[in-house]
Amino acid sequence: MERVERILNGDVRAAARLIRDIDDGVASCRDVLKVLYPHTGKAYVIGISGFPGVGKSTLVDQMIHAYRAAGKTLGVVAVDPTSPFSGGAILGDRVRMQRHGTDPGVFIRSLATRGHFGGLSRSTHGVIDVMDAMGKDVVLVETVGVGQDEVDIVTTAHTTIIALIPGMGDDIQAIKAGILEVADIFVINKADREGLEKTVNDLKTMLDMNRQRAENNSWRPPIVPTIALHGHGVRELMSEIDRHRAFLFGQGAKHLKAHLRAKALRELKDMVVEMVAGRIIRGLEESGRVEAVLDDLVEKRTDPFTLCDKIVKDGIRTYFRGDS
Amino acid sequence: MERVERILNGDVRAAARLIRDIDDGVASCRDVLKVLYPHTGKAYVIGISGFPGVGKSTLVDQMIHAYRAAGKTLGVVAVDPTSPFSGGAILGDRVRMQRHGTDPGVFIRSLATRGHFGGLSRSTHGVIDVMDAMGKDVVLVETVGVGQDEVDIVTTAHTTIIALIPGMGDDIQAIKAGILEVADIFVINKADREGLEKTVNDLKTMLDMNRQRAENNSWRPPIVPTIALHGHGVRELMSEIDRHRAFLFGQGAKHLKAHLRAKALRELKDMVVEMVAGRIIRGLEESGRVEAVLDDLVEKRTDPFTLCDKIVKDGIRTYFRGDS
Repeated sequence: MERVERILNGDVRAAARLIRDIDDGVASCRDVLKVLYPHTGKAYVIGISGFPGVGKSTLVDQMIHAYRAAGKTLGVVAVDPTSPFSGGAILGDRVRMQRHGTDPGVFIRSLATRGHFGGLSRSTHGVIDVMDAMGKDVVLVETVGVGQDEVDIVTTAHTTIIALIPGMGDDIQAIKAGILEVADIFVINKADREGLEKTVNDLKTMLDMNRQRAENNSWRPPIVPTIALHGHGVRELMSEIDRHRAFLFGQGAKHLKAHLRAKALRELKDMVVEMVAGRIIRGLEESGRVEAVLDDLVEKRTDPFTLCDKIVKDGIRTYFRGDS
Repeated sequence: MERVERILNGDVRAAARLIRDIDDGVASCRDVLKVLYPHTGKAYVIGISGFPGVGKSTLVDQMIHAYRAAGKTLGVVAVDPTSPFSGGAILGDRVRMQRHGTDPGVFIRSLATRGHFGGLSRSTHGVIDVMDAMGKDVVLVETVGVGQDEVDIVTTAHTTIIALIPGMGDDIQAIKAGILEVADIFVINKADREGLEKTVNDLKTMLDMNRQRAENNSWRPPIVPTIALHGHGVRELMSEIDRHRAFLFGQGAKHLKAHLRAKALRELKDMVVEMVAGRIIRGLEESGRVEAVLDDLVEKRTDPFTLCDKIVKDGIRTYFRGDS
């Protein structure tokens, strides 16, 4: 396919179009991604997540700057399901990244996928693969929040960074289980704010208590204070990323293998969900019967369990006839 | 079924067991929920969401207190996918709610479901139905964060409350699209903190700009400042909830109907995903072939698209043979 050739040669317009189609859930993307797949796996993928207001975009901007200074090319995926902008064209108010807008070594896209099954993480996998196949050295993935979706997304990265700010003591308690499991590096941004020491100590205590992690994995997540706005701590962050990368390709090789398998399993699951459940539900939606079905449910003339059985049965007969 | 009778009579132990099974993904729950379904739809469901640290649990505690003082019985579902506690037995460090622990009029459960397909929102629907069928007047659903999962969950409520704190100016910008669409009431908790006026004004400006919402829906979300820890503003919040309820059952009846249909559709979709994709993937996992399959993927001897086709084909043949 000419399209594939162009993407493999790093053509920005071809890649941007494919990414927009992925975000829009266009079915034909599947064939292109399938051909691109053997060309993926070369980029180093870094995920960064955290609640709004911790300064993720500024951190990402500094990381882009540092990698560019080292001669590396980058793909950047900003995943923001709450963004009003669709289709990867607009980065919203991420103004600080605009200074890289004219740098051909940086390719920035924003995803807004909503409502598909496994849609957000499925799309993100696809977009990372496109940037990887384009030949980018590093792919940065930025997500907002620390929910299950975001965790699923950032853990597809080789190195997962969780960004916090000082004074989140109680809040860390609330989210500790999730973030302790996934973080390879903690950044405490806005480190000049009150409460840095307490936040660092709270994190350390939690890491100490998390024995299970220590047993499964000899990597202990470092805690890096930064003031990204002024570039403080960015060198330390980059050096910790390098250290983690060296770990993965050295003594952590077993860990890397487990990571790649977990990533492959998640990707496969998302794909099965999208393929089979997605097709059945789109079929229902296109059948024109949805309104009547919903009325039956709301009026309790039927129950969703009985209905689900029927929809699945009909759907399989209709959409997977040749397969069964 | 005796189990169903006991739950309909409000039996806490029977309900707690069913809820634990729902959270654990036990398949037989389906049959019980199916029989309970016609008995649901009576409880008033209130969703409350917000990022960690905004004081959701304290707000929920105050709301429980207010409803109990008015003689209402409550079910409370705390949805926390990052919680290390499984199975609805433990509420973690939600100590402030413990004062209701011995009140038979309050039934509090915590959910920790992870990893199922549509698992979190599917389980939450089920648990709300159980509490509804038990005869609770009000069901409160608390979720952490404002991601897609949480939005899906809280929007199943009749009244959706989004809790913020002052000084979230820029952060509101980042999440505005998501929260403006779903919130029926905004609470600005910790209202004695600096920045209350700016946060209120920012929200108002955004609400003014969100014309689409105004056109579809004549309800304009009120903004209620609270200091939940001291009970300040709780009366105002309760009164806004009553006002929204009166709106839904009065001039907003069209809106309520649309809401119930949207809820039914989402529930049905979750169920289809869980049934068909869930069964196929569990089949793969139980087949003993997963390790080999993942090795093939990691070594790029195959691609996930080809594999997905095969898994879906085999899965449909195996698990839906009689149906197709």
